[in-house]
Amino acid sequence: MSDAALSAAETLPASRYPIDALLADIGGVPVSLEPTDIKRKSRDYYWYSPILNARLKDKFADIIVTPRDEADVIRVAGACYRHRIPLTLRGGATGNYGQCVPLEGGVVLDMAAMNQIEWQKPGIVRVQAGAKLFDIDAQTRPNGWELRMHPSTKRMSQIGGFVAGGSGGVGSVTYGGMREPGNILAARIVTMEEAPRVIELRGDAAQKISRAYGTTGIITVLEMPLAPALPWIDVIVAFDDFAEAIRFGQAIAMADGITKKLLAPIQWPLPENFSAIRPYCPDGKAVVLGMIGAMSIESFETLLEPFAGTVTYKTPSEDALNKTPLYEHTWNHCTLQMFKVDRGITYLQVLYPHDRVVEAATEIGAKFPGEVMQHLEFIRINGLMTASGIPVIRYSTPERLYEIMAAYEACGIMIANPHVLTLEDGSRYKRVDADQLGYKHEVDPLGLLNPGKMRSFVPRSPGPLQ
Amino acid sequence: MSDAALSAAETLPASRYPIDALLADIGGVPVSLEPTDIKRKSRDYYWYSPILNARLKDKFADIIVTPRDEADVIRVAGACYRHRIPLTLRGGATGNYGQCVPLEGGVVLDMAAMNQIEWQKPGIVRVQAGAKLFDIDAQTRPNGWELRMHPSTKRMSQIGGFVAGGSGGVGSVTYGGMREPGNILAARIVTMEEAPRVIELRGDAAQKISRAYGTTGIITVLEMPLAPALPWIDVIVAFDDFAEAIRFGQAIAMADGITKKLLAPIQWPLPENFSAIRPYCPDGKAVVLGMIGAMSIESFETLLEPFAGTVTYKTPSEDALNKTPLYEHTWNHCTLQMFKVDRGITYLQVLYPHDRVVEAATEIGAKFPGEVMQHLEFIRINGLMTASGIPVIRYSTPERLYEIMAAYEACGIMIANPHVLTLEDGSRYKRVDADQLGYKHEVDPLGLLNPGKMRSFVPRSPGPLQ
Repeated sequence: MSDAALSAAETLPASRYPIDALLADIGGVPVSLEPTDIKRKSRDYYWYSPILNARLKDKFADIIVTPRDEADVIRVAGACYRHRIPLTLRGGATGNYGQCVPLEGGVVLDMAAMNQIEWQKPGIVRVQAGAKLFDIDAQTRPNGWELRMHPSTKRMSQIGGFVAGGSGGVGSVTYGGMREPGNILAARIVTMEEAPRVIELRGDAAQKISRAYGTTGIITVLEMPLAPALPWIDVIVAFDDFAEAIRFGQAIAMADGITKKLLAPIQWPLPENFSAIRPYCPDGKAVVLGMIGAMSIESFETLLEPFAGTVTYKTPSEDALNKTPLYEHTWNHCTLQMFKVDRGITYLQVLYPHDRVVEAATEIGAKFPGEVMQHLEFIRINGLMTASGIPVIRYSTPERLYEIMAAYEACGIMIANPHVLTLEDGSRYKRVDADQLGYKHEVDPLGLLNPGKMRSFVPRSPGPLQ
Repeated sequence: MSDAALSAAETLPASRYPIDALLADIGGVPVSLEPTDIKRKSRDYYWYSPILNARLKDKFADIIVTPRDEADVIRVAGACYRHRIPLTLRGGATGNYGQCVPLEGGVVLDMAAMNQIEWQKPGIVRVQAGAKLFDIDAQTRPNGWELRMHPSTKRMSQIGGFVAGGSGGVGSVTYGGMREPGNILAARIVTMEEAPRVIELRGDAAQKISRAYGTTGIITVLEMPLAPALPWIDVIVAFDDFAEAIRFGQAIAMADGITKKLLAPIQWPLPENFSAIRPYCPDGKAVVLGMIGAMSIESFETLLEPFAGTVTYKTPSEDALNKTPLYEHTWNHCTLQMFKVDRGITYLQVLYPHDRVVEAATEIGAKFPGEVMQHLEFIRINGLMTASGIPVIRYSTPERLYEIMAAYEACGIMIANPHVLTLEDGSRYKRVDADQLGYKHEVDPLGLLNPGKMRSFVPRSPGPLQ
């Protein structure tokens, strides 16, 4: 929906919640009741999915609340609990599953103002949940460190939203996904109770908020492990044959002596939409986009020799807000680049079997020529190197989409369905092994946090309004 | 053999080579003809193997030559070629297979004086072959880098000897072994010819000198990739059960979010010999020795919770020449610690199957209780996490030793026999995929470099002496 369309619709239905009572309780905490604000801040990139778009486009908050600090969060949480008002966390809103869309209205808690770094130690940063990934890297790099992984939306995303919804990204080829032990050190949360508690979840316990969409506590602070900030080289390699591109990507992926942050084989015609790097993506060719450690770039090219590929681009990575980075052509940005020229598409999220990556990709590709366009991102999962993928799909009907999903699964490729709203339906291999449902009962007994997203949760009887 | 024993035997048999003619040709290059020097510099730690000890204890050089620079190396090589004198490279002599023992006498080329760092770039060091690993780390760490891997003999080893004979070590749990693409960037060699050439082997070509015992050229300079120098924590965890120790080690090994440099489960009674850390090795317990990134130590302890193990030691790693480091209880130093109290042992080198590490270790352990004492070092190989091991064996006869080796292989555990002299017999899974034999014909046509170590090599007819 364009901003113009938003402004045209300036009124919203009256709220079913006692918003005035809430306002009286949280006086001083910045809020917005402007319909334009409310509409803009009630959505994310769910429109990549025509199915989610239909279900979410008329879901709006009643009020946007922007806490300045943890004390504000506690006041808002307590007030929401007393007045039985749902509260949905909003980070950078770069997700694609409606993670931050308030299905039941109520408060959208916009974390953008809580964006401070609390401290840095060698290899660790402690940061408020609303800090942008880009800004975190900018502040840790002078000390020699950077985030271990980030989504392709790094220029906009916030760390809280990434941890609450993301599963991995650029960097996961080395560190695995967010769910791997050691990739979240601690989370500080505020509970949704009469008297909200502040809880520090350390170690394994921090997984209780990982990929839980903010249903298991209001994340205020995160302690994240860092990676050494290395000199990265952006590289593009072109191949006549997509399978050859995958084979080469896998050879680099499996070479532990080659330091890397990104390895993405991408099938033609997807590169046709890569306006920022189009000159380096020859017509009709598959490409591998990579971020390779400068100390490994010669070895990377040596390993390319037996493959039928040509380096078309090789230049030091640059993280600048005003420049499209190479990684914004991988992961779900690959879909976005195509949306810019073609709205008739959607996408899936898949995980290739680690011991049959090339075979499975070839097999599924042969079944849907022209309809399924593949790109793979190599990642480690459970200690094994494999590849996830976010295939771009020419969209016709939901039925056809589900048919394609079934075909993927028949090829041994796992699906994490991005066309559903709930954690349980969407996550599968991305789910962590923590008792998030049990924990929700402890910290959000009435189910007021992002209601509708944790399908298995049944709140205890709310009791009378106070 | 003790130094006292060496001094007692002060004379050596007359040389079969024209050493005087050599001396005339290389005037100015430092040499030693002292029997004590010659005997000391003609051996390494081959005496770990009673079989090699019997074969090597009377193999001596005729002269020790200590080049100051590449020009010296060229003069010595040319003179050796003209006079048909064998030349064997010597680094820190910390190997265990007689790599630097001159089977046919002649020159031992002691590289110790060629120990300069040529330059450093982010993630890369270019260094003369005789530089000690300890000194390289000391000079790269202030810039934020360290060697990716080192043997447990780091305090004595030289980089040239490690590359020419080693296969991996502390650090290989992350970067794999030396043979993995990207772990050697380049080597500069001098050929053994009438007019010695200087050749720069870059990329894949550098593998021609990897683990070739100096048979494929005289390595003068190496360009090595580096790892970020991280704050490491030495940790010891004690377990009642050795299999549980392996299971925990493997869980950490497979956790890509936990940064590590060393992970070694060690069976009792081996820790009984660890005098420097004995207070942290409880009687009768298996231990896991680890070097864990400081940013991951809390996650390490979290992952320990479901295992029946107890942290007994946890302190920042310190690399000091006058202090026994934790890693000097792992790899083949584990054997050395036992040799200090018990000479009736020897060892093997093994590679556990990556998908049956615990099972295979348990199976072989049950076959030889008290006779085989296992310790494992987790390493990556070909992109998969597995474990190598250097079991300590109570030695009786060569026949019994070969029986034990056969039992290992029957359990699916590969053997790299450390009781043989030649590359072909010893290396197996450690061999690189480069045509070292073909290359030797190009750079050492007469087979004068470390003769007897590359069994498959047949020199061309040497022609008349010049």
